[in-house]
Amino acid sequence: MSSLVYNFGAGPAMLPREVMAKAQAEFLDYQGMGASVIEISHRSKEFNAIVDRCDELIRELSSLPENYKILYVHGGARMQFSAIPMNLMPRTSAGKALYFETGNFAKLANKEAARYGQVEIVASSADTDYDRIPEFNAADIDQDAAYAHITSNNTIYGTRWNQFPDTGAVPLVADATSEMFSREIDISKFGAIYAGFQKNLGPSGLALVLIREDLLGHAMPHTPTMLDYQVYADNHSMANTTNTFALYMLMLTLEWKVQQGGIAALEKVNERKAETLYQILDDSGFYVGNAQPAHRSMMNVTFNLANTELSDLFLKEALENGLYALKGHRAVGGIRACIYNPMPLEGVQALAEFMREFERTRG
Amino acid sequence: MSSLVYNFGAGPAMLPREVMAKAQAEFLDYQGMGASVIEISHRSKEFNAIVDRCDELIRELSSLPENYKILYVHGGARMQFSAIPMNLMPRTSAGKALYFETGNFAKLANKEAARYGQVEIVASSADTDYDRIPEFNAADIDQDAAYAHITSNNTIYGTRWNQFPDTGAVPLVADATSEMFSREIDISKFGAIYAGFQKNLGPSGLALVLIREDLLGHAMPHTPTMLDYQVYADNHSMANTTNTFALYMLMLTLEWKVQQGGIAALEKVNERKAETLYQILDDSGFYVGNAQPAHRSMMNVTFNLANTELSDLFLKEALENGLYALKGHRAVGGIRACIYNPMPLEGVQALAEFMREFERTRG
Repeated sequence: MSSLVYNFGAGPAMLPREVMAKAQAEFLDYQGMGASVIEISHRSKEFNAIVDRCDELIRELSSLPENYKILYVHGGARMQFSAIPMNLMPRTSAGKALYFETGNFAKLANKEAARYGQVEIVASSADTDYDRIPEFNAADIDQDAAYAHITSNNTIYGTRWNQFPDTGAVPLVADATSEMFSREIDISKFGAIYAGFQKNLGPSGLALVLIREDLLGHAMPHTPTMLDYQVYADNHSMANTTNTFALYMLMLTLEWKVQQGGIAALEKVNERKAETLYQILDDSGFYVGNAQPAHRSMMNVTFNLANTELSDLFLKEALENGLYALKGHRAVGGIRACIYNPMPLEGVQALAEFMREFERTRG
Repeated sequence: MSSLVYNFGAGPAMLPREVMAKAQAEFLDYQGMGASVIEISHRSKEFNAIVDRCDELIRELSSLPENYKILYVHGGARMQFSAIPMNLMPRTSAGKALYFETGNFAKLANKEAARYGQVEIVASSADTDYDRIPEFNAADIDQDAAYAHITSNNTIYGTRWNQFPDTGAVPLVADATSEMFSREIDISKFGAIYAGFQKNLGPSGLALVLIREDLLGHAMPHTPTMLDYQVYADNHSMANTTNTFALYMLMLTLEWKVQQGGIAALEKVNERKAETLYQILDDSGFYVGNAQPAHRSMMNVTFNLANTELSDLFLKEALENGLYALKGHRAVGGIRACIYNPMPLEGVQALAEFMREFERTRG
């Protein structure tokens, strides 16, 4: 095996090394069955035990209230951009949903929702290129709306909601793809919270949806059966063949989170990781952070260098130092360090050291 | 590693052992990148090369005509039960599709389609518990219909279409989940052909859709973006994060098919495997085949024993002999041996030997 890199990619992102080693070791033979976990029925007792264990770990890690269902839904977060309005828009007679526009994925989410009902943008930070979470007036929250949608962490721009908006009686729905289980949050404040797997949960292909029971059962007539959350709730997410590998890896990843001390402990490490990099931005005239300091993400640290040549050189030399996939999204350019749960503090320290050295020699 | 079993499960099913060994060997470090193939971006050049290679192998293996698109779609075949009508129903003004009802999945497919337009059942074998492919009158094919849908192989009942129906100008759409790339077929006879991955293609979570270009671009207004085949065609199936692991495994599985000599060579082995088991059914008064001989599947051999006690004993002793997951679907009971491409002839011979010995001692 060649030496492994520190992988700062946005997703599919690195997974905990202990998880990867365990998955490799038992890849051909799961629990002495003589078959791989990817070769057994999603209805076998061994696979049912995996799904049950995922449920149990999620409830334990997130203190999920009893009246929330856990769904494992096909297609990642983007599929939920349709599923959320299809399942929730008819909840009230207004036929209307509220969206906060804080970046590229937030925009894609509201654009998709507008195909299924009226979408009102409560607030947007488009005017400053999404470098912040916008202010809004609580009085602007139409209490007849079916739901209000936020993107809790904006991967591309490196911002996050530090405090979630109070939307009154309107259920708050969050796309938490890039920060699920990376900080303690009170899920009872949300009507639904969802996340594609490929950043903090496992490999790509599925989304985790945590949803308050009273929000189920309102789906639009044309909702595809495999996007109907009620169908997932009624069938323990096994109405059809699920992505069994992703759920197995989710189980390992959640067990790893518990072993790390749970979400509170992970959050402490994540804070230290983020501070390590933001300190460099704050101390430097060489690196220019993208996000306004009060709105910085703890998962995605984005910054620019003076010009493209310098950025390219940074990326090239970083890679030579085992620091992989630091290129910023094309919408922002520059550099992006994604430091999800699986990124160890040592990886961030290696990047910090490289950044200081690069500034010293090229600044 | 404990000894591996011969796995006759219906899906997620066994994969070629060479494929599994290769995936395990490079699980932590893909092509010396220092990261796993499941930890890299779906937009990285290394992953793009995987998708390109899948396309190339599919075209090579299936002699896919130039005017067909290859799509890798989220959610398995069941998601396509909605996607097919949502994408195709508006193709003609009739708002109508034709379905052939040959089993459980065929029924689920037409039930889902009926939510999006008028569904006409051209023929059904429900009257004989789906033990055959029903006859139909070519004059009954309404030439104004948007498409005609078949399930080319019926996993649960162990039947298949030996000759595909001639539907005239109405595009024939086939769910080929349980027999994709297991026998030579002329894809130009189909408007679209689709298959969930988890039987002959790889692990679960995605579906392969081969579709004639002129059938794209007709989607109903409420079609979720991630179910719109045109979106997949326009974005090389990368409009969002795909199931990267499944595509990587698809590539390895397709390469394996080429190494086996291609589909014609696999079909010969598959014929021999199926004949080995059907010969026992034909020679025996002890085992009673489910499918009418003229309609037998080459992938799923289903049969019954005299009573449940004998079936249970068969399953128990089979497992003790390393023959795994032979239990029939609850709709049919008895025994089902799924012998997809990855099942080696030796596995089938081991089962045949066990069956003969079981009949000798218990018959």
